[in-house]
Amino acid sequence: MAKKPVPDASRRSDRSRRAIYDAALALVGEVGYPRTTIEGIAAHAGVGKQTIYRWWASKADVLLEAFLDLGERTAREAGQEAYDLPDTGDLAADLKHVLRATVDELRDPRFEVPARALAAEGLVNPQLGAEVVAHLLEPQLQRYVQRLRTAQQAGAVRPDIDPRIALELFVSPVAQRWLQRTGPLTHAYTDTLVDYALHGLAPR
Amino acid sequence: MAKKPVPDASRRSDRSRRAIYDAALALVGEVGYPRTTIEGIAAHAGVGKQTIYRWWASKADVLLEAFLDLGERTAREAGQEAYDLPDTGDLAADLKHVLRATVDELRDPRFEVPARALAAEGLVNPQLGAEVVAHLLEPQLQRYVQRLRTAQQAGAVRPDIDPRIALELFVSPVAQRWLQRTGPLTHAYTDTLVDYALHGLAPR
Repeated sequence: MAKKPVPDASRRSDRSRRAIYDAALALVGEVGYPRTTIEGIAAHAGVGKQTIYRWWASKADVLLEAFLDLGERTAREAGQEAYDLPDTGDLAADLKHVLRATVDELRDPRFEVPARALAAEGLVNPQLGAEVVAHLLEPQLQRYVQRLRTAQQAGAVRPDIDPRIALELFVSPVAQRWLQRTGPLTHAYTDTLVDYALHGLAPR
Repeated sequence: MAKKPVPDASRRSDRSRRAIYDAALALVGEVGYPRTTIEGIAAHAGVGKQTIYRWWASKADVLLEAFLDLGERTAREAGQEAYDLPDTGDLAADLKHVLRATVDELRDPRFEVPARALAAEGLVNPQLGAEVVAHLLEPQLQRYVQRLRTAQQAGAVRPDIDPRIALELFVSPVAQRWLQRTGPLTHAYTDTLVDYALHGLAPR
């Protein structure tokens, strides 16, 4: 008689990883970054803290990976490719589509609560702030750079525009309203930002 | 022989107020908002904590007033009127002038260190965040609203533009670069933002 199959080690790892990601996001949202510890994450996830130290060097590393995983899952659920902006040939429509999806994600409590705790710490902790920008924020912004470059080749954006600055005209207002709660974050609002940015405030 | 003059009570109050403002800004920059206390501010300022409680109900109130005072002092030092944007008739030049001054203030450590601590707390403390927006941020933004309305009357901005949203095209990128350190904050950068916002990214 054959022995019972040994549980697949990689699947078991995947389950532990997912439990650790979920625990890290829940904990940072509950108690903030400074009071989040590897021990606390381990206890929440029901694993030993050595399991966490085997895979990650610090709580910052766990959290950054947990956010990357959350972003990928959210994008998959929304039927999006993780790393490309749509290119239907209509720049305004493509930007509005992506910014509406971004608003939906920013307003989703699964994302908002832990992301706000991480962002708050990034403001006063330059090392963590730099990691958040390099690993979570800038890769998102580079998707807009690529889409604006394609638009320049198609003649929809002026050739002398710097795409890395241009994207801030519609991305940064969303970031500020989300970070500082300076106004409502709606689809109508992000549609308006795209129209203003593409056509300008001055009469044509 | 006349008695020695009694120290002027209002001038003595002004000195205590200034010492308390300075202590509050220094302390929040050093230890962060959660660990700033009325007792700590009093000790830093060399006054009794009852002196603080006589004038303010909470540490949030002390800090908001200290920032208002700092903003007014900085504006006076720069030779600006505190509540009006310049109106030379050249909207682009006026916006560039004010945004260059804003960059200088944001990069001044006297402002940056305590303001960053307050902003970080505002992200995760909705009540404080709302007070920061209502008392410190929104009054600044309303100066842009007024200037953009004047520009609309002068025909320099399209009449269908909502000024409260339009200002975010050049103010929010500065806020995000300052808050999250997503890129350098220079005069050339803010000049570029103004040009892109007024003329748009699409060819004319």
